[in-house]
Amino acid sequence: MSIGKVSIRNGFDSFDEQFEPRIGAELNDHAVKLVKVEGEFPWHHHDGIDELYYVFTGQIRIDIQEQQTVELEAGELVVIPAGVEHRPVAEQEAEILLIEPTETRNTGNIENEQTAETRHL
Amino acid sequence: MSIGKVSIRNGFDSFDEQFEPRIGAELNDHAVKLVKVEGEFPWHHHDGIDELYYVFTGQIRIDIQEQQTVELEAGELVVIPAGVEHRPVAEQEAEILLIEPTETRNTGNIENEQTAETRHL
Repeated sequence: MSIGKVSIRNGFDSFDEQFEPRIGAELNDHAVKLVKVEGEFPWHHHDGIDELYYVFTGQIRIDIQEQQTVELEAGELVVIPAGVEHRPVAEQEAEILLIEPTETRNTGNIENEQTAETRHL
Repeated sequence: MSIGKVSIRNGFDSFDEQFEPRIGAELNDHAVKLVKVEGEFPWHHHDGIDELYYVFTGQIRIDIQEQQTVELEAGELVVIPAGVEHRPVAEQEAEILLIEPTETRNTGNIENEQTAETRHL
């Protein structure tokens, strides 16, 4: 097996679908997922799972239960602790990385038309 | 508790030490660590732990046992699987992110003058 590198830029250039996570890398039981986001995502939480949002290009805001919204630009990250209700919103398309356990469902505790299977790049 | 964001740029600007990891974020049992590297690091491996290298600025190469060296530029990553001997090298200072279990020792199975305690930003 040869160990190869991944270009995040090339990864994002390889697909167009929004809110459909692509696994860019896996380590231990976690994954780095590439996601294009635009518009509002539903309020949700992840039981027992912390989730990291990192903005690669663009900007997003994350509404969080009972506290001020967090606004993120490229190069900024936030960790949403397990169980905390949150809602990512992007006025224009943004490219973000999620770091979380590989099996995490994108819409957490809810299932709707934005629930998407996580695929590999 | 208020959930706050982290700027990777500001994080790197807050310290100068090379090869001394700083924890920028923690999620589940993993951490995102900021590390400034320049020069050669010793060959080492991590038993039972996969380690992700992501280049934030600059470029590095990672020599890997029994395979071609991987050269990484900003925006590129590689995962070194558990147990695989590797050696990161940077001709000039580079800023990298490591993603790995929080307790991972930077020099893995060896201990030398580059072994450093991991601190928080």
